[in-house]
Amino acid sequence: MKTAVLGTGEVGRRLATKLVSLGHEVTMGSRTPDNATAAQWAAENAAAHGTFADAAAAAELVINATSGLVSLSVLEAAGAANLRGKVLIDVSNALDFSGGFPPKVVTPDGGSLAEQLQKAFPDTRVVKTLNTMNNTLMVDPTRVPGHHTVFVCGNDEAAKTETTALLRSFGWLPAQITDLGDLSGARATELLMPLWLRLYGTLGPTDFNLAVVTA
Amino acid sequence: MKTAVLGTGEVGRRLATKLVSLGHEVTMGSRTPDNATAAQWAAENAAAHGTFADAAAAAELVINATSGLVSLSVLEAAGAANLRGKVLIDVSNALDFSGGFPPKVVTPDGGSLAEQLQKAFPDTRVVKTLNTMNNTLMVDPTRVPGHHTVFVCGNDEAAKTETTALLRSFGWLPAQITDLGDLSGARATELLMPLWLRLYGTLGPTDFNLAVVTA
Repeated sequence: MKTAVLGTGEVGRRLATKLVSLGHEVTMGSRTPDNATAAQWAAENAAAHGTFADAAAAAELVINATSGLVSLSVLEAAGAANLRGKVLIDVSNALDFSGGFPPKVVTPDGGSLAEQLQKAFPDTRVVKTLNTMNNTLMVDPTRVPGHHTVFVCGNDEAAKTETTALLRSFGWLPAQITDLGDLSGARATELLMPLWLRLYGTLGPTDFNLAVVTA
Repeated sequence: MKTAVLGTGEVGRRLATKLVSLGHEVTMGSRTPDNATAAQWAAENAAAHGTFADAAAAAELVINATSGLVSLSVLEAAGAANLRGKVLIDVSNALDFSGGFPPKVVTPDGGSLAEQLQKAFPDTRVVKTLNTMNNTLMVDPTRVPGHHTVFVCGNDEAAKTETTALLRSFGWLPAQITDLGDLSGARATELLMPLWLRLYGTLGPTDFNLAVVTA
């Protein structure tokens, strides 16, 4: 599938590289057409790069892997017309480090970043997922053994089905994928970041994830 | 051990009843000396009840099972002198339902309720735990099979050790108890409530919990 990955950071590169390995036609989007990181990634992966608008225009599926603090402006740069009708998988977190560590989670309008993006781009089908774990685990869930969880939420059922299929192609098992319902579920998952950061600090350099365990 | 349970709600009654069953000498504290719920609970469990101050004064260990929105005023009513040097296990969550459901988590001063209580009562040894699950699971972790997690954090190591021993007596296994370090870890666990509420809505009437799963 023609896929845009918006963002050239570690998360964006990890997802984009995985998508290329799965046979997708990936364009990495960045603010300028000559972004050095995007150009290098594209050269190394026989893939494309361009502006956020270039990437979104070429894509059937768009992934937001930018910092949540700038995601709204990134999507504005991508352009509503280039995003119309498309699934937008939002894996971002809005973390404000201006007050030091640990950062504060920014929750626009007391809701979530994902809902803010959906409101700004009502014709785009936003799905929130993968924002609760390290990027290495996103694309290789077997790094943590046994049962653990990736959350999915969104207002468009078909978009969630498409996203779930993508997660399955990354190796996530059906029992590991927890559907939290509509996009307001992002209010719950975006607030997991403080726990993730805390565990990252206390567990040290090991792979970990949260699991929802039921009786 | 002489234990005060502050709060007469479902959480307080569940914890107090479990403590009685384990042989502790429990006083349930409430705002007035003649609280009907506390009186009935005490009669049914051959235990004591009284004001917050009565309960705290009589206790070696104090549990805050009040709504987080009123916990600070509850501890003020209990009195700093009655809390001095004692372990205070804070199981509360500050949920503001004034805007409807789901409620907002109130984070005093951008931190956590637990830290607010610790700051107001510097001579009391606050430990945050058990606030991330249903009260039935708090006192019977076997309701959810296999590996799942209770978080503990606090600034006083001896107080955490004492709290961990209490959790062990409730049935929690060492591998299920995750120490998040000092009391600022409560910033992480208090923000789990939106996910808990969301899962409660999507999973329906079943026991569940989160687990930290490591490689």
